[in-house]
Amino acid sequence: MTLNRKSTRPLMLVTVLMILAAMAVLVVSCRNNAGGPSTNAPTAGTTEDINAIAAARGLTPQDLVNAAKTYTPSGKHDEYYLFASGGQSGQMYAIGLPSMRIIKQLAVFTPEPWQGFGYGELGTLRILREGGLGADGKPLTWADTHHPALSETNGEYDGQFLFINDKANARVAVIDLRDFETKQIVNNPITLSDHGGTFATPNTEWIIEGGQYAMPLGFKYSSIENYESDYRGMITFWHFNREAGRIVPEESFAIELPPYWQDLCDSGKLVSDGWVFCNSINTEMATGGVELGNPPFESGASQNDMDFLHVINLKKAAEVYAAGNYDDVNGFPVISLDTAIAEGLLHFVPEPKSPHGSDVTPDGEFIVVAGKLDPHVTVFSFQKIMAAIEKGASDFDPFGVPILDFDDVMEAQVELGLGPLHTQFDNKGYAYTSLFLESAVARWSLGGSFDKLNEDPPWTLVTKTPVHYNIGHLVAAEGDTVSPDGTWLVAMNKWAVDRFMPVGPLLPQNFQLLDISQPGTNMPLVYDMPLPDGEPHYAQIIKADKVKPWDVYPEVGWDSSTMSVWEGAPKQGEERVERDGNNVTVYMTAIRSHFTPERVEIRKGDHVTWHITNIERALDATHGFALPDYNIHVSIEPGKVVSFEFDAVQDGVFSYYCTEFCSALHLEMMGYMLVEPSDSASAAD
Amino acid sequence: MTLNRKSTRPLMLVTVLMILAAMAVLVVSCRNNAGGPSTNAPTAGTTEDINAIAAARGLTPQDLVNAAKTYTPSGKHDEYYLFASGGQSGQMYAIGLPSMRIIKQLAVFTPEPWQGFGYGELGTLRILREGGLGADGKPLTWADTHHPALSETNGEYDGQFLFINDKANARVAVIDLRDFETKQIVNNPITLSDHGGTFATPNTEWIIEGGQYAMPLGFKYSSIENYESDYRGMITFWHFNREAGRIVPEESFAIELPPYWQDLCDSGKLVSDGWVFCNSINTEMATGGVELGNPPFESGASQNDMDFLHVINLKKAAEVYAAGNYDDVNGFPVISLDTAIAEGLLHFVPEPKSPHGSDVTPDGEFIVVAGKLDPHVTVFSFQKIMAAIEKGASDFDPFGVPILDFDDVMEAQVELGLGPLHTQFDNKGYAYTSLFLESAVARWSLGGSFDKLNEDPPWTLVTKTPVHYNIGHLVAAEGDTVSPDGTWLVAMNKWAVDRFMPVGPLLPQNFQLLDISQPGTNMPLVYDMPLPDGEPHYAQIIKADKVKPWDVYPEVGWDSSTMSVWEGAPKQGEERVERDGNNVTVYMTAIRSHFTPERVEIRKGDHVTWHITNIERALDATHGFALPDYNIHVSIEPGKVVSFEFDAVQDGVFSYYCTEFCSALHLEMMGYMLVEPSDSASAAD
Repeated sequence: MTLNRKSTRPLMLVTVLMILAAMAVLVVSCRNNAGGPSTNAPTAGTTEDINAIAAARGLTPQDLVNAAKTYTPSGKHDEYYLFASGGQSGQMYAIGLPSMRIIKQLAVFTPEPWQGFGYGELGTLRILREGGLGADGKPLTWADTHHPALSETNGEYDGQFLFINDKANARVAVIDLRDFETKQIVNNPITLSDHGGTFATPNTEWIIEGGQYAMPLGFKYSSIENYESDYRGMITFWHFNREAGRIVPEESFAIELPPYWQDLCDSGKLVSDGWVFCNSINTEMATGGVELGNPPFESGASQNDMDFLHVINLKKAAEVYAAGNYDDVNGFPVISLDTAIAEGLLHFVPEPKSPHGSDVTPDGEFIVVAGKLDPHVTVFSFQKIMAAIEKGASDFDPFGVPILDFDDVMEAQVELGLGPLHTQFDNKGYAYTSLFLESAVARWSLGGSFDKLNEDPPWTLVTKTPVHYNIGHLVAAEGDTVSPDGTWLVAMNKWAVDRFMPVGPLLPQNFQLLDISQPGTNMPLVYDMPLPDGEPHYAQIIKADKVKPWDVYPEVGWDSSTMSVWEGAPKQGEERVERDGNNVTVYMTAIRSHFTPERVEIRKGDHVTWHITNIERALDATHGFALPDYNIHVSIEPGKVVSFEFDAVQDGVFSYYCTEFCSALHLEMMGYMLVEPSDSASAAD
Repeated sequence: MTLNRKSTRPLMLVTVLMILAAMAVLVVSCRNNAGGPSTNAPTAGTTEDINAIAAARGLTPQDLVNAAKTYTPSGKHDEYYLFASGGQSGQMYAIGLPSMRIIKQLAVFTPEPWQGFGYGELGTLRILREGGLGADGKPLTWADTHHPALSETNGEYDGQFLFINDKANARVAVIDLRDFETKQIVNNPITLSDHGGTFATPNTEWIIEGGQYAMPLGFKYSSIENYESDYRGMITFWHFNREAGRIVPEESFAIELPPYWQDLCDSGKLVSDGWVFCNSINTEMATGGVELGNPPFESGASQNDMDFLHVINLKKAAEVYAAGNYDDVNGFPVISLDTAIAEGLLHFVPEPKSPHGSDVTPDGEFIVVAGKLDPHVTVFSFQKIMAAIEKGASDFDPFGVPILDFDDVMEAQVELGLGPLHTQFDNKGYAYTSLFLESAVARWSLGGSFDKLNEDPPWTLVTKTPVHYNIGHLVAAEGDTVSPDGTWLVAMNKWAVDRFMPVGPLLPQNFQLLDISQPGTNMPLVYDMPLPDGEPHYAQIIKADKVKPWDVYPEVGWDSSTMSVWEGAPKQGEERVERDGNNVTVYMTAIRSHFTPERVEIRKGDHVTWHITNIERALDATHGFALPDYNIHVSIEPGKVVSFEFDAVQDGVFSYYCTEFCSALHLEMMGYMLVEPSDSASAAD
């Protein structure tokens, strides 16, 4: 590409008439929203440059506006963090808005060598090991991450912690936003599949993990013929200790649910604080078997006109749990379905046809459900639900769960289009719903307390913006809080098809940024961002100034897996190699640009434990450490201490080295681990 | 953030005077290159919108120009692929230019679940296994990727294959750009550390892998006291078979080198085709030992004023190898240092002080070396080197390698600034060198055949552009070919420090895009891109239209690890579960939106082999497959067949499901693997 910019011509050499003519052209081209900018634009100054560039690159005036909205110059920071699921990568992304640049990939469930997550470092290996062992007895090393949740204080994101679930293996991870590292993974003790998580309650006392595919709880075998009697759904409430920064499994519990496939949940807030709302699919209890001539799941599970929104009284459930009124399933407290019904913890609300999203409005008053096989969103009133529960149900599902009357609790239905899924909110009384089949974002007006915030009549479709393509979730700035910002919205599109340059049969997905700052029908799409790795399901957007990460660790000798100083960390001047029989311990420091020691002489058969402290205090003065052939790589940020261990099973010479280009003499930052043969006579020839 | 755009006022309602006044303001603000745009800009049309947005966001006119140069609207494709190393992540990035968006992360050395690389899929597990086993006998699962090389035809990138090395474990990977998948990893049979790779010869007959840290070849042990006698450097030439798309280890060889640390190499081209130029550090043969009171490597290896550029006659070396004139080291042919000297394969050229980059000009005539502890770049003439070799050397290193006279072969030295590292080229007779210590890109003019291409005198510094911060490599569009484009250059900065919003103590790196399309001192920095995962060392930039990936695999039943149809792939209508004793084989198909079969009933203790064909033909209709608890995740693009196997060690019910949101009924695309206990009486209670 050549930009073909013309040289600048000084204004004073041009006649006044020419100036006026030029200005006219300029204004016309500036106002021409429909076509591209004129290629006859005058050759003077910055706007001319922009016009020439736009002409050469085929940019429309609207493109230039979008560029100005999103371009973030060198050294200026973005205004929001978008924390996105990394889907099957098992990781997360931290993305800056509005530039839509991925600032960091966060290792969560999948070993990641740059960050030293799971590549020998004992702290991270412990997190992975405690986070769940696979059938082979070894740590699970991937996840299908779905729904991140930022920690909240009084219903506002507080920027302290981040949670995310693993649908594939029913796990939940805790990330500390002081250093953006994963600190804990908990493994669901009673089932293998989750989907309706994670969601944080308004003060982060509970992290919600809803299930997905029903199975016998506690990992029992039972024939699929026993589906109705033996298979069950569940919802798990993990208690979070904010001071410790950890989930406390010993203070957590689950509720047994019917073998419908519980899908997405949302936590109540404000008036509905203490309640949880989960929708469900496959209330048909289809068991598949297309190979036997049965209808496949996709049709067997799509017969009913109504599925069930699960209305769960979490506050009361916590009391029932605290009172010891639960069963033990695989060592975990589970409130049985019978107890849940008897104690009034669970009510159903009919919801139209195979819903997907369940989203509570910022005031906590409405629950918006979108049935993907129904063109409407359905809005339920929390007040009406409370009244209906008070009144009592006259209908029950096959398991005895009371079913509230649809007309008693439904506030509104708004026809939006084909395949509505998820809903987000702004500060102008609008809701935004993704339309999967239509590939669009619908803006519609809320009623109730939101009615006066815009000029549109309540409960009406206002506008739609097409997106590309097959939108799943969508996420608005501070969109799950009690006070959304109403600035930006990101459409999380499942297919990219033709949006980006080709990269083979496996395509990226497409995050599209929409400017939702203006009311009414003005909702332009301003940026396309490819997702390079995995299918992100959901994300949350938080104001940048709420997140206050550390620049460097607070003290030298910091163990980031415990978030405290480790007294045993190697100190400058006390580096050494200690031997106790066949056990060798290396105490090493790293500083620009050498490791101490630079020679580690051991013997074949030794068991080696190796500690390294980065004694630097300067921002960004990270060192890495690689040991060839041993699958060991650790990242040692300023102040951090890392530890790893291995058996020296092979004699020879191993060059360890720093893997972060830390100085002009970085390549010289290395050393030799010399492993003498056990039979010391057999040196090299 | 609120954009505060004002509403549009129709022009006709404004007086002519007001129009003229408005236009005057507009022109003034457009021409104001120094300050920001006027906040009093008129409220009419697109330019007004841009000015208001710029004022609200603090953008300068130059920022708007940069935005226009880089913003790539929805649906428009980028103009170049930037294929970047992923550093310690072990992966690669495919990035679009000029938008600087990561389009895809490519799994190369590190298991990656989204792509199904190493998560059960037998083809990728085989690639990882053949790519090198660690000390524990299991596949190495990470790499420190450094220097990618695109395949070339007649010295031009041809867009067919991509190669990259693993510095940590001395390996080379081959990626096929038809599907962006890694097809092969080869493990260096004689040493553990590489750095001077990969580089492709002008027709990709050879992939060059130069070593780094000297060690006894063939993985022998020898005390560090025997450094000069027993430790050695090496360079390996991997023969590439373009038709097979594979490196052929049986047709590859290495050359033994003195125990200096060989660093970066470059392949000759045109006149110098058949030659290879590698620089070196630590010709002091320092062995470290700071803990013993020795100088640390960083100073011990930085004493000499001159190190040695290794001039290697690859064409002749290939003849010596073909003639069988080599030793066997660990089963691999290695031309001994003595043979290399005797056959005239190796000459040294003194090069100033701890050099890093070695880069051959597009015409093949000059080799540019930058000594990181010397403020100059030094330019050697290939013609003069040939003449000096012809004349014969009178000096020799301690190992007998002939040393050519510096003044005989040096063409020019250009003082650029502090810490020069790497050099790239354009189409205007300029070279570009990264200045690590100065954090800048220097543009300087070439002489020789390049002299007439610009108005600057030859061999002179033209301009510098500051970058942020600590630049390592830099890369120009088509910059390693015989005809660079001269459009874009990317500065690959090691430290980001303050450029991006904070993400904890481990920071991203910073790719900065420079517009090099204009001659002289005009070389603006136009975009900052954070690197979210790993430290990329080098990259190559290829015109987008040269890369022609497949949209979908050519035929249903495609095995991408062999790039051919597998006759045994499950076919629609022939799905089944076969049992032979304890061996169970599953033949499954996937199509929107169900797997067939949906029930797989087996017994605890069975060994299960499972094949899945995605029978779709539509672009982007990818299915994923997850099996909980078994660490199995595969990606099944349209047409692909994948296979995996496992032992059913645990009875119970396992919900497998599609992990790509493939349709509105994607959640229903699942099935149950039912593992009956061996003692069939023990069903669920």
